[in-house]
Amino acid sequence: MAWRFALMIDPAASAQESADFSHSLRVLDPSVPALELGELSAQRGDGVFESIGVVDGHPHEVGPHLERLAHSAALCDLPAPNLAQWRAAVERVSAEAGPGESVIKLILSRGVEGRPAPTAWVTLATAPDNASARRDGVRVVTLDRGYPLDVPGRAPWLLLGAKTLSYAVNMAAIREAKRRGADDALFVTTDGFLLEAPTASVLLRIDGRFVTPAPSAGILHGTTQLSVFAHLEQRGSSTAYEDVPASDLKRADAAWLLSSVRLAAPISAVDGRPIVVDHGLTDELNGFLLGRRG
Amino acid sequence: MAWRFALMIDPAASAQESADFSHSLRVLDPSVPALELGELSAQRGDGVFESIGVVDGHPHEVGPHLERLAHSAALCDLPAPNLAQWRAAVERVSAEAGPGESVIKLILSRGVEGRPAPTAWVTLATAPDNASARRDGVRVVTLDRGYPLDVPGRAPWLLLGAKTLSYAVNMAAIREAKRRGADDALFVTTDGFLLEAPTASVLLRIDGRFVTPAPSAGILHGTTQLSVFAHLEQRGSSTAYEDVPASDLKRADAAWLLSSVRLAAPISAVDGRPIVVDHGLTDELNGFLLGRRG
Repeated sequence: MAWRFALMIDPAASAQESADFSHSLRVLDPSVPALELGELSAQRGDGVFESIGVVDGHPHEVGPHLERLAHSAALCDLPAPNLAQWRAAVERVSAEAGPGESVIKLILSRGVEGRPAPTAWVTLATAPDNASARRDGVRVVTLDRGYPLDVPGRAPWLLLGAKTLSYAVNMAAIREAKRRGADDALFVTTDGFLLEAPTASVLLRIDGRFVTPAPSAGILHGTTQLSVFAHLEQRGSSTAYEDVPASDLKRADAAWLLSSVRLAAPISAVDGRPIVVDHGLTDELNGFLLGRRG
Repeated sequence: MAWRFALMIDPAASAQESADFSHSLRVLDPSVPALELGELSAQRGDGVFESIGVVDGHPHEVGPHLERLAHSAALCDLPAPNLAQWRAAVERVSAEAGPGESVIKLILSRGVEGRPAPTAWVTLATAPDNASARRDGVRVVTLDRGYPLDVPGRAPWLLLGAKTLSYAVNMAAIREAKRRGADDALFVTTDGFLLEAPTASVLLRIDGRFVTPAPSAGILHGTTQLSVFAHLEQRGSSTAYEDVPASDLKRADAAWLLSSVRLAAPISAVDGRPIVVDHGLTDELNGFLLGRRG
């Protein structure tokens, strides 16, 4: 992934209510070192992030991404981000995106060790080519996430449900999936409930209903899943958040991974067992997701 | 923590067997930005680390730390570090330490996104003042780590037992402990076994025996705990690695947190219940740990 543009966000301006945040956004050369060795993001994965899909210069789901950034920051006891300032940063970066698909990444780190202020930056990169995943689908393997369904509610220090920079396990799960000849992983609880993919939400169609695991299970509330639910509801389909047993993967007649940049990737196999790809609905979902202009 | 010295390690030299690695160690001004925004350490906590205690210029347990760095790297599918090169880096940095207590941190990151080489650096800082923790002890609270004892063996993608840069949960647990009026946390499994502290091993004395949780439980094998066991065995005490029920905290007549920089910190209370501090043995352990010169 090549960084095409980057901004540093001045946290000193984070309390202001001004409509003009331009002076608090510093353009960086993304190829030049910009982070100190004392950065707690780099030393301890101590911070939170969001990845926003951008199509032809239009960033998608900016509101839900910023709300989730603030939610993650609160779970991690980080200073509340000034969402108007972050929104200004997203707009400034989007203006550089140009045609095609891009990805904007927002990072809010606890800062440099020993200093009180967080570090915050925003990057722009060309999105990877996701045509094959959207068309042919992704093969997934189920992997134990290690905890039972009821843990997130009683152990908030595990930060389940926060999109933290501590993503080593998410990356390891994807490597494990590839070792097993698949493309991606699907996490399940020790007591057999479906959670999410390392970087995506999961959506099942069962008996004509569209079901996704409830965010109370310590997973992220997917911004793309929110958009897909809104679209499905508008066309008259039934949607639900539920505790989904992993065995429901066998009952589903179609399933998708949903994320901000890859968008709707149909699941073509689970643990080696094929699932039929609904090309028609997949194309409809991606057409909707790609076509948004606001 | 103020960085007093830093080295970047050139991974291109990682395969060489030369005895002279000086050309592959680049001295940095630690206050100047040195990491790119594409750093996977900063974006995803994707890397591994070690913290080495240094007393009067003598780094401690260098061999066990380097072995654990290599073990963590293997668990994370990172390129194997050239331990001779890292040892040369530790020696170079130690030469700058001067009198008193310092801490050397080794970081091996997966590198900049999209590039094949890892990024590696070593920093030197003055150690915090740990006199009070060593003398008066630390109050701990037990916190659920969220997984049962048998998970690490069957789910290696959870990276339990690797010292990764994804330490957001460890930091959150310490904040939770402080919120509860304590100094530090002690992780326990969902099925009630003792694990470790967020940045330390735990040692219990029960009926005259010294017991620590077995590293097979997906915890780090403590380098300071290894040194303390060697010392205790040499004085004729009995030591053991076991699956330790958390209820054994009530049977223990003394307990310690052991780590590379704070060294032996006696536990003075667990969840508000006092434990008697064995000042004599604590002073003996810290005297031994601080006095090492090789």
